[in-house]
Amino acid sequence: MPSLRSAVPPFEVMTVLDQVATMRAAGRDVISLCAGEPAGGAPSAVNEAAAALHASGRVFGYTSALGIWPLREALAEHYRRWYGLSVDPAQVAVTTGSSGGFLLAFLAAFEAGDRVALARPGYPAYRNILTSLGCEVVDVECGPDVRFQPTVAQLAEVHGRRPLQGVILASPANPTGTMVSRAELAALVAWCEAEGVRLISDEIYHGVTYPVGVDRGTSAWEMGTSSVVVSSFSKYWGMTGWRIGWLLLPADLAAAVDALAGNLALCPPAPAQYAALEAFTDESYAECDAAVAGFAEARDLLLAAEPRLGWGVTAPADGAFYYYANLGPQLERWGTSGAYAAALLDGAGVAVTPGRDFDTVLGDRTVRLSFAAGAPAISAAIERIVDFQR
Amino acid sequence: MPSLRSAVPPFEVMTVLDQVATMRAAGRDVISLCAGEPAGGAPSAVNEAAAALHASGRVFGYTSALGIWPLREALAEHYRRWYGLSVDPAQVAVTTGSSGGFLLAFLAAFEAGDRVALARPGYPAYRNILTSLGCEVVDVECGPDVRFQPTVAQLAEVHGRRPLQGVILASPANPTGTMVSRAELAALVAWCEAEGVRLISDEIYHGVTYPVGVDRGTSAWEMGTSSVVVSSFSKYWGMTGWRIGWLLLPADLAAAVDALAGNLALCPPAPAQYAALEAFTDESYAECDAAVAGFAEARDLLLAAEPRLGWGVTAPADGAFYYYANLGPQLERWGTSGAYAAALLDGAGVAVTPGRDFDTVLGDRTVRLSFAAGAPAISAAIERIVDFQR
Repeated sequence: MPSLRSAVPPFEVMTVLDQVATMRAAGRDVISLCAGEPAGGAPSAVNEAAAALHASGRVFGYTSALGIWPLREALAEHYRRWYGLSVDPAQVAVTTGSSGGFLLAFLAAFEAGDRVALARPGYPAYRNILTSLGCEVVDVECGPDVRFQPTVAQLAEVHGRRPLQGVILASPANPTGTMVSRAELAALVAWCEAEGVRLISDEIYHGVTYPVGVDRGTSAWEMGTSSVVVSSFSKYWGMTGWRIGWLLLPADLAAAVDALAGNLALCPPAPAQYAALEAFTDESYAECDAAVAGFAEARDLLLAAEPRLGWGVTAPADGAFYYYANLGPQLERWGTSGAYAAALLDGAGVAVTPGRDFDTVLGDRTVRLSFAAGAPAISAAIERIVDFQR
Repeated sequence: MPSLRSAVPPFEVMTVLDQVATMRAAGRDVISLCAGEPAGGAPSAVNEAAAALHASGRVFGYTSALGIWPLREALAEHYRRWYGLSVDPAQVAVTTGSSGGFLLAFLAAFEAGDRVALARPGYPAYRNILTSLGCEVVDVECGPDVRFQPTVAQLAEVHGRRPLQGVILASPANPTGTMVSRAELAALVAWCEAEGVRLISDEIYHGVTYPVGVDRGTSAWEMGTSSVVVSSFSKYWGMTGWRIGWLLLPADLAAAVDALAGNLALCPPAPAQYAALEAFTDESYAECDAAVAGFAEARDLLLAAEPRLGWGVTAPADGAFYYYANLGPQLERWGTSGAYAAALLDGAGVAVTPGRDFDTVLGDRTVRLSFAAGAPAISAAIERIVDFQR
C-alpha cells in the first residue's frame, strides 16, 4: 500500500507529454503546446562546452552539495547584471532544477502542518510537493480582478483567520503569465516580513517577458534577503532537461539547506553545472533574448487569433510562455476543458493542458497553451484549433 | 528559523570533499580517499555518446517522469543479463541518482511517524532523509559478529518491541563493504513479506565485488517483487556526478512513485539518460569490469598493508570500494577518529572519512577509506599514513 502522503495527483503536463510521445511513436503528427519547453534549447556555447567536456573523457564526480563555486559566482554576477544586486556567491545554492530547489526550500522553511498560501490558479507541483511533505496548502483564489496574483489584502484576510507560515509567489506566473508590479512585490515582501511569514519567490520565468528586455521581472531580493528566491536555467536559458536551477538563501536557512542538499541530492548534475558556466556571456544572453523574441512572435499570433478562437476571458500573459484561457462558448459543446483537450489531441493532433491541474475549482473551464514551441508551431496549431472547433 | 525537520547533520563526506577542494585550490597535494567516486569515470562509449549528442545541438527537453523508455528497457535487459530475471520496463523507474530514488521510495512507502530499521554502521543519508521526512529511524547495531548486516533475529526482536514499517538493507554495504549471502537475503525478504514490513534493498554497489564477476550481488527481486530495489549508474559504471539511478517498483507503489516523480523532480537529467543507453554494450561492461579489477588491486594493497597500518578490527569488504576500520591503537594518541582524520588531512594530505557519520555511537573509533581512487593513490596514501603515524 502506498503511503497516504504519496496520494498526490500526477502532474498532468507530464501525463499529456507521455500521450504525445506515444502518438508520435505511432506516426501521428502532433503539435505539442502542453509543456513549457523552449524549442531552441540551450545557448550554443553551453552545448559546445558540454560536448567538449564529454569528448575530453572528463570524469564527473560529485561537486559540492550546493554546486561548483564558479557557477555560484557566475550566478551572483547575473544578479548584478540584471538587478544591480550584490549577492554573495555563498548565498547561491545550485539545485537539481527548480524542482530540487523547491524540495530543499520547503523542507528547510516549513514544518509538517505548516500552512502555506498559494495563488489559485497556480503551478500544481507547489501544492503536490507541499502536500507530500505534510504541509497544509491554503488556496487564495486569484481571478482576473487581481490579475491572477495574490494581494496583501487577500493574504492578511487568510492569515487573520488562521496564521500562515509561508506564501509562494510566482511572477511571471504559471499558468497565467501575469506579473506583479515592483510596488506590489515590495508590499508583499514587507507584509511577509512584518508577519513572520516566509515568502518563497518563484522567479524562474524572469527574462521571459514582453517586450523582451524591458522589464525582466523584479526579484524579491531587491527588497531584502528574507525570502527564498527560486530560479532555473530551464526557461530563459532553454535547458529544461538538464535539470539545473538555483536558490538564493536567506542567512538563517543556508546551513539547513546545505545539510539537506548533501543528504537528499548529494549534488546537482555535474556536467550541466560546468557547461552552464557558458550561459553568462554576452553572446549567450543575446541568444536567449532572441529566443524570447521568438516567444513574443508566437504570443502575438495567439493574441491576434483571439477573435477566431472565440474563447472567453484570458490572462494577460505579461511573461512566461503561457496563454491561459477560459474556453467560454466551447464549454457548451464539450462540457469540460478536460474533454475538450482530449478531443483536440485525438481529433486535431494539438496537445494543450486542461486547467484542472492548475485550478482545482475552476480549472474545468480553462486550458493552458504553451507558446514556447515557437511561432510556426503556434500558427499551425491555431489553424487546427479553428478547424476543430468549426 | 529553519524547520526542526531540516536539523539533520551535513553528510560528512561532502564536508570533507569541500575541505579537499579548498586545500587543492590553495596548492596542497591531497590524496582523497573520502568519497566513493570511481577514478575512471563513465565508460568511454557513454562519454562519446554524450559528446556527440551535445555537439549536435540537440534540445534536451523533459523526458517522462520515470525516464525514457529505451533506458527502462535497457535496465530490464540488464536484470536478465546479470540476474536471469524477467523485469517489465514499466517496473523500472529512472531517478536522479539513487538519492532521488530514495526520496521517492521513502515518500511512497512510509508515512510520517513510520519506523524504519537500519544497520548501524550505515550510510548516513538514509537516516537523514528519513528524519527530514518525519520517519523514525530504528538503529540495529550490527557489529563484526553479524558481519555488519542485520539478521532476521535482530529485526524480529526490534519489531516485537514495537512494529516496524520498513527495513533498509544495503549489500554490499556502505561503509563496510560486507554482503549478505543469498540465503540470508531470502530469509530477510521472507520475514519482511510475512510481517508486512517494506524492504528497501540498496543494490548500488552490485558488480563492485571481489573477485570481479564471480558474485555480483543477489537482488532482492530474485526473491519476488515486494521490495523496492534502489540502484545507480554511479558506482559500477563510474557516473557519480551525472546523477542517474533507478528503482525497481513493486506493483502497489508504481503509480504513487510516478505521481511523486512528476511533481518533485519532473524527470531525471535528460542528457545522462540518453548517454547511459551506451552503458549496456559488451564493451562498456568490460570497461566497468576492468575498473573493478583496479579497485581489487587497490583493495589488495590495503589488505597487505594491514600490519603496517596497525589498526584494529576491520570489516571484510566483500564488495563496494570501502575499507572500514577501527583505529585501534591510534585512538590512544588521537582520542577520536575525527581528530585523527583532521590531523591526517592537515599533516599528511590524506582525506579519509571519520566513522561518526556512519555510526553515531561507535563511530568515533572508526574511519572509512574509499579505495575507488585506485591502486596508485592507495599506495601513496598508505606510505603517507604510515609516516604520519610514526
